[in-house]
Amino acid sequence: MNDNTLKSIPKNLVPENYLTLANDARVERDKQIKLLLEQRKLPASGWREPMIEHCISELALLDSNNFPTRCGMGEREGRIVCDLVRRRHYNFSHGIGRSGNLTDAQPKAAGSTIMANLTNSLVRDWIRTIGIPSCGHAIVVPLATGMTVMLTLRAIHASRPAARYVLWSRVDQQSCFKSIIAAGLTPIAIDSLLASEINGNGEQPQDANPTFATDLAAFAKHINQLGADAICCVLSTTSCFAPRSSDDVIELGKLCKAHSIPHVVNNAYGLQSSYYCHQLNQAARTGRVDAFIQSTDKNLLVPVGGAIVAGSSADTVDAVARLYPGRASGTQHLDVLMTLLSLGRNGYSDLLKERKEAYAVLLEGLANLAKAHNERVLPCRNPISIAMSLVTFETTTCRLEMIGSMLQKRGVSGCRVVSTTDSKTIDSSTFQAWGSHSSKASVPYLTASASLGIKSHEVANFLAKLDEVLRKYRTKYMGNGK
Amino acid sequence: MNDNTLKSIPKNLVPENYLTLANDARVERDKQIKLLLEQRKLPASGWREPMIEHCISELALLDSNNFPTRCGMGEREGRIVCDLVRRRHYNFSHGIGRSGNLTDAQPKAAGSTIMANLTNSLVRDWIRTIGIPSCGHAIVVPLATGMTVMLTLRAIHASRPAARYVLWSRVDQQSCFKSIIAAGLTPIAIDSLLASEINGNGEQPQDANPTFATDLAAFAKHINQLGADAICCVLSTTSCFAPRSSDDVIELGKLCKAHSIPHVVNNAYGLQSSYYCHQLNQAARTGRVDAFIQSTDKNLLVPVGGAIVAGSSADTVDAVARLYPGRASGTQHLDVLMTLLSLGRNGYSDLLKERKEAYAVLLEGLANLAKAHNERVLPCRNPISIAMSLVTFETTTCRLEMIGSMLQKRGVSGCRVVSTTDSKTIDSSTFQAWGSHSSKASVPYLTASASLGIKSHEVANFLAKLDEVLRKYRTKYMGNGK
Amino acid sequence: MNDNTLKSIPKNLVPENYLTLANDARVERDKQIKLLLEQRKLPASGWREPMIEHCISELALLDSNNFPTRCGMGEREGRIVCDLVRRRHYNFSHGIGRSGNLTDAQPKAAGSTIMANLTNSLVRDWIRTIGIPSCGHAIVVPLATGMTVMLTLRAIHASRPAARYVLWSRVDQQSCFKSIIAAGLTPIAIDSLLASEINGNGEQPQDANPTFATDLAAFAKHINQLGADAICCVLSTTSCFAPRSSDDVIELGKLCKAHSIPHVVNNAYGLQSSYYCHQLNQAARTGRVDAFIQSTDKNLLVPVGGAIVAGSSADTVDAVARLYPGRASGTQHLDVLMTLLSLGRNGYSDLLKERKEAYAVLLEGLANLAKAHNERVLPCRNPISIAMSLVTFETTTCRLEMIGSMLQKRGVSGCRVVSTTDSKTIDSSTFQAWGSHSSKASVPYLTASASLGIKSHEVANFLAKLDEVLRKYRTKYMGNGK
Amino acid sequence: MNDNTLKSIPKNLVPENYLTLANDARVERDKQIKLLLEQRKLPASGWREPMIEHCISELALLDSNNFPTRCGMGEREGRIVCDLVRRRHYNFSHGIGRSGNLTDAQPKAAGSTIMANLTNSLVRDWIRTIGIPSCGHAIVVPLATGMTVMLTLRAIHASRPAARYVLWSRVDQQSCFKSIIAAGLTPIAIDSLLASEINGNGEQPQDANPTFATDLAAFAKHINQLGADAICCVLSTTSCFAPRSSDDVIELGKLCKAHSIPHVVNNAYGLQSSYYCHQLNQAARTGRVDAFIQSTDKNLLVPVGGAIVAGSSADTVDAVARLYPGRASGTQHLDVLMTLLSLGRNGYSDLLKERKEAYAVLLEGLANLAKAHNERVLPCRNPISIAMSLVTFETTTCRLEMIGSMLQKRGVSGCRVVSTTDSKTIDSSTFQAWGSHSSKASVPYLTASASLGIKSHEVANFLAKLDEVLRKYRTKYMGNGK
Repeated sequence: MNDNTLKSIPKNLVPENYLTLANDARVERDKQIKLLLEQRKLPASGWREPMIEHCISELALLDSNNFPTRCGMGEREGRIVCDLVRRRHYNFSHGIGRSGNLTDAQPKAAGSTIMANLTNSLVRDWIRTIGIPSCGHAIVVPLATGMTVMLTLRAIHASRPAARYVLWSRVDQQSCFKSIIAAGLTPIAIDSLLASEINGNGEQPQDANPTFATDLAAFAKHINQLGADAICCVLSTTSCFAPRSSDDVIELGKLCKAHSIPHVVNNAYGLQSSYYCHQLNQAARTGRVDAFIQSTDKNLLVPVGGAIVAGSSADTVDAVARLYPGRASGTQHLDVLMTLLSLGRNGYSDLLKERKEAYAVLLEGLANLAKAHNERVLPCRNPISIAMSLVTFETTTCRLEMIGSMLQKRGVSGCRVVSTTDSKTIDSSTFQAWGSHSSKASVPYLTASASLGIKSHEVANFLAKLDEVLRKYRTKYMGNGK
Repeated sequence: MNDNTLKSIPKNLVPENYLTLANDARVERDKQIKLLLEQRKLPASGWREPMIEHCISELALLDSNNFPTRCGMGEREGRIVCDLVRRRHYNFSHGIGRSGNLTDAQPKAAGSTIMANLTNSLVRDWIRTIGIPSCGHAIVVPLATGMTVMLTLRAIHASRPAARYVLWSRVDQQSCFKSIIAAGLTPIAIDSLLASEINGNGEQPQDANPTFATDLAAFAKHINQLGADAICCVLSTTSCFAPRSSDDVIELGKLCKAHSIPHVVNNAYGLQSSYYCHQLNQAARTGRVDAFIQSTDKNLLVPVGGAIVAGSSADTVDAVARLYPGRASGTQHLDVLMTLLSLGRNGYSDLLKERKEAYAVLLEGLANLAKAHNERVLPCRNPISIAMSLVTFETTTCRLEMIGSMLQKRGVSGCRVVSTTDSKTIDSSTFQAWGSHSSKASVPYLTASASLGIKSHEVANFLAKLDEVLRKYRTKYMGNGK
Repeated sequence: MNDNTLKSIPKNLVPENYLTLANDARVERDKQIKLLLEQRKLPASGWREPMIEHCISELALLDSNNFPTRCGMGEREGRIVCDLVRRRHYNFSHGIGRSGNLTDAQPKAAGSTIMANLTNSLVRDWIRTIGIPSCGHAIVVPLATGMTVMLTLRAIHASRPAARYVLWSRVDQQSCFKSIIAAGLTPIAIDSLLASEINGNGEQPQDANPTFATDLAAFAKHINQLGADAICCVLSTTSCFAPRSSDDVIELGKLCKAHSIPHVVNNAYGLQSSYYCHQLNQAARTGRVDAFIQSTDKNLLVPVGGAIVAGSSADTVDAVARLYPGRASGTQHLDVLMTLLSLGRNGYSDLLKERKEAYAVLLEGLANLAKAHNERVLPCRNPISIAMSLVTFETTTCRLEMIGSMLQKRGVSGCRVVSTTDSKTIDSSTFQAWGSHSSKASVPYLTASASLGIKSHEVANFLAKLDEVLRKYRTKYMGNGK
Repeated sequence: MNDNTLKSIPKNLVPENYLTLANDARVERDKQIKLLLEQRKLPASGWREPMIEHCISELALLDSNNFPTRCGMGEREGRIVCDLVRRRHYNFSHGIGRSGNLTDAQPKAAGSTIMANLTNSLVRDWIRTIGIPSCGHAIVVPLATGMTVMLTLRAIHASRPAARYVLWSRVDQQSCFKSIIAAGLTPIAIDSLLASEINGNGEQPQDANPTFATDLAAFAKHINQLGADAICCVLSTTSCFAPRSSDDVIELGKLCKAHSIPHVVNNAYGLQSSYYCHQLNQAARTGRVDAFIQSTDKNLLVPVGGAIVAGSSADTVDAVARLYPGRASGTQHLDVLMTLLSLGRNGYSDLLKERKEAYAVLLEGLANLAKAHNERVLPCRNPISIAMSLVTFETTTCRLEMIGSMLQKRGVSGCRVVSTTDSKTIDSSTFQAWGSHSSKASVPYLTASASLGIKSHEVANFLAKLDEVLRKYRTKYMGNGK
């Protein structure tokens, strides 16, 4: 419907003055859509559902599969045979990109093209507003984070074909390591320093497992030994489970810049923390960050399936877009677009604030609980995940992991118990104390996170259940309730 | 989105030539919507879902509850608190009409107003195209058929306050009779003539229960006895269960015209038959039909809940609209609008054709089955429902109704068994042989209908199951399998 | 899916222990649904959308139109031809009730039957919990409030066929008056007393238009004159626009009880006020209330189209259900059911609290504004609507209604300006000072309501705009900005 | 709802006998779901929408994010913040697989796990029933076809780390070539033989560009030169644009088997042709096919975004699943599952039949049109795409591509015009006569496909428009209308 349509509505359908008020509203809505397309900036306030669906629907109708008359003589005409499927995709069918490039326009799908490019623009704007103003380019890719890291490594490798190694600061998430292997490159895992080693001076003798720190010296050593040209890139990590802290991406960035080695940061769920955002921004400003990669699900609360590749310059981001062979799913873009429009800048701010408050409550609650059970919260600089020691719960009669099972049965999900006694072999590499991020770790612990979207009642619920479980565990498996 | 929006889409979002093709499609779509609003005629071809939803959504956004900014200080502001409810109503909330009139425009709801008026216009156009070109006015009312008859009687009574009686050609559907009672009027039930009585000449002596015919003489007699002014209206019926046939609405129409008595036709599901449509059109042309009333569910295959009041002149239709006190649900209009747009003239034609074919198959199948079981199809002029006698199944050990139950258990619904031995009292009136439409009926039978939307496999399925049930009934309750 | 289905899921589809946790959740969900069906009480906490849809979907699948195999040989088989329509009705198609009764079970539609009866039960429970514990019966009817009043009057009239009059305490909403006319009865409009008349003693000489009070003496006088048997019922009103207050339903209830006259209360949007609920409960306890009628849209924030008939005894409520001729739309029940389940008792409490707070803010804001403009808030006992005088704005150059238009142009809806100078004729009855509820009213005013679902920012927004409009009006039409 | 729930429904909600019939239907539905989960075979008849949604919804409710009570303390808890997004994913949020494996079960998401594994099983069953009974394993991967080829190449390379080359039978679709490059491998493009070269005997001297044939000798030569160990795999293609034919996958399969070289077939949209299915089946039986890869969008008419990796043995299929680093989108599985359930075996058969008929009509129509314009249909064995020569349309005043633009403007999409005069460079490899699949091609032509889902009216429409365009082109750009 446009201005002409409304003007032509006969007066016997509706009186003119009633329509005038309605038209004012329509004009206002069109103006907002126009503004969005022109400026491609996240609106301050979120849009309401009818408006989002209206806008999405208008875009979809620009795709050829939705043209009133269509005559499709190609091998892919965007036909959808199952109505349920058609509806859940809002009549979008052609996906995004072309064989040459994830961000290329599709002749048959002007609407999908706009939808995807608009989403990428809004994502960039969003990243800039939440603490990384240096972000110059960002694209959504319809791949899991690990797969995206793999694709990014391959894109970088394409311009450094002689390089074979990836210097990787160890973090015990299987997909990080696997993404290097899957890329056909050779990972060199570098353990973090534990704080007592750093200080060396006995300042924290009581701490067997304190703050982790990136072993910058080891990185430098490997660069010297292998030669910068043999190194495809440095792969560092921000967000991770406590007690591991974020890598020192600022210093790693400087090191990479000094040796002209690409620097990729796995920022998996780091956009929900202003601390990580700040670190990344500084790293890019003062050193080198070729690309930072994060999942859409954890940072934007959409279903699993997408990642964001971002960077200050376009080089690596574009290289990743150009490497993806073939057209790709547009689902992740659509999820992100609808989510960003529904939240607006303010809605996302509220989520961040809520998370920060939940973190504070969780930290205080765990500290109290730890004290009551003669344990402690392990010191680390991790704004999302918290680790509480389980030293006094070690026993020969039962594995500590039972604590995790007991929590799970009570509806608590996502709480990890790490006994530091296991090792794991992935593709012929063996990791000691798997799960604890360091082969030197020795203190058993459990972790809990205050991640985006958490509700305060969940934290309260968790603290109560954990207390109950720890008491029960002592009684049942250790013969006392203390 | 309008022409300006598209023009302002930056070239880096999508190349101009891709957008041009898309815009052609958009312009074409807008043109179709404009045409619909201007001409208010049913499109020849049905629209596809995305286009229907797009159009509906545009209309809903013209209602004040969907305005981007709104400040509602009245007692009814169209707020919907449950999202599931909001979505299923496509963001429509204000209903239709105003306290004064079902067809009045609402200042707060220009979109709902257009939606309702457009629906009424399309319904009128549809009725005209399927066989009643004399139809000048039609409105959808959000009431069941019976309640609509009641409202129509009250509207007519308002202009004939002295009249107390409704002359009603008996048809055994409770809600018809109840609608007269509920209107506070006095029904005078007039039995149909059975064919053997008409002929008198023994042409069909073997037929104890042949074709029904409207007892025109009895109507004339009552008019003379009571006086035309005492009679609120004549209420006749077209579509009904066999072996009853349609009333002779043409002759009744002439009678009413002659005596200046309003004539209301209960055309419950008669729009699906070209025969009934033709009768109605003739009755209006040559005699008098103040209003004919039909359900939306049976004639348009929407959920139960609405009816259509139509007539050649506006008098009675408008009087009904003006009588409804208060705003009403817009749901029935929306269902009808979406259905009509999705079918188009051609889609409805196809449905009619399919039904007619199914009727022929059913008639032939029942005739064969009847022959095989020493029964017969009862002669009558009923283009939808067919009755097969059950004379040889009468037994003292079991009620014939068991046949109905046995069918139901096998998934057959809607098949009625009438034993003609029951009587029923409604509001102090007693009807002999209730269910058979005549106190003189004596032949037991079962009915089956080929009504709109029936699938040929249902007919085949039914015939097989009926055969099976009849055989089983004989074996089980009559001691033989014959 | 049931216990057996899950037990039979092969282990290679999913490990058993993962399924066990999921099954615990399923069992918990089934338990809640079972509890709902057994107790038919509103849950304390609202259900989440997936659970509501799951429950609704299960019910719909119990209807024959959704049976995997079906063979429909009747004239109404619940077929839906347009998929969009089918989906918005959650596959429900058969409506509710049967020709005999709105609350009767349907053989073909066990699911719809449960859905409707469950809704009625929950509505009764909800009414009891929010302040009318004496409510013994309640049903949702798919009719607007006015039409429901009409149907109720007809149901009462059926048991008092000789009665012709309805004693009606005047309230200037057209549909109330029209519902009496449409029922074929004769309204006797009784003006309210204005406070200065009550007192007589000059206590409020400055008040030309103070609190309204039900003129009980006039009611008594009419009963004596006409005789109780000639009076079909008394029709009183609770919720209405200020400055009219609620009728004194307690005293009217006593009067009706004393004379054995039915008492119907139009409680249009009164369930959102604890004051009205309390009055109604008292009236039923100490006097007589045969039925109180309210809209679903205003009290439950669903789309327009339904009403609730409630009463302490079943008599009138059942009579209304039995009078409705034919099957009816199930849409209103479904909207109410989904809304009640999504809110729960607590959710509705929150809405009530929010409304009460908004009312307080509005009252204070209007009082301040009135003072600033040399006007006053008209005294009355109305917990929803507030009236502010416009005495100093009267001028010969412009009608006061212009203030309403100016507000509307600024996005304010529902604010009424009453100049008390108009009269209106409905069906040959003429009302002086139409809109002001009393022929003796003389103070012009505007009204604003804090009704259910209002947001505090709407109130603030309104107060700012009203101030702006009043200033502009003075400048533009009165030549000064004072 | 389960058996207990229904048993506990109070009799005053619905009569027992009505519920019994409904329960029979429910039991039948549960039985079908149980059967599906137990046997994991595509049902013969498609399911209706309500049943599909019911089943999907039940599965989703088994995921922890939908548990009535949940307490999520991990970093990914499947929260969805935007309701629109939640709904379109049917409440699924956790994606599929785990960091280790695309087909691994997720502890938090039993429902997603079942959904994904069930889909994979149904896909395998479907592939077996449509002509490749030798298919032993199949998985859906949420990646475009090209990206899936890339991942498959990397998975194969992992077990042949010394191999560098991919022998690739040239086909001019950019993403095929790019997938090899993206995998970090070196493509060796082998041109097809054109038929005149094969015959050599001048049998088709008039044919400058006849049937393509795989240059088996060239493949053998390269294997000998490079050594089998240096070759990662042979990559062949079935479905492609005419006039290229399918590669001789049977002979290539034998060659690969003989030299123990993996054989990957790009079967992009080949499952819609029984001929390609048969070739693949034979190739696997008599030779070697490690994996054949096809898109979900073209073969199952779902939106772009997924591919299927299948093979007779599990080796390569599992290796691909294990290589994907991280959890992946479940959207493609869900689309495929809903589509397969809605079609059933019969529904897919109907689609295949419809396509075959449309192909016959298109072939005949193009042959006639070609004759009328002094052109010919280029001979080739391609059951989907047809090429018609454009020799007599070559002119110096206009590029042949204008014919494509003219068609596009008339709503025809997917029709390609190839002038054989262009060359293209991708990642430093240059291809002569790009678009024509062979550097020796010289006849210009246009292609049109009869692909799955095409409607007969589209073919008729296309033929008419093509005729019109060709005539207009001659008149406008060649100065004659002949």
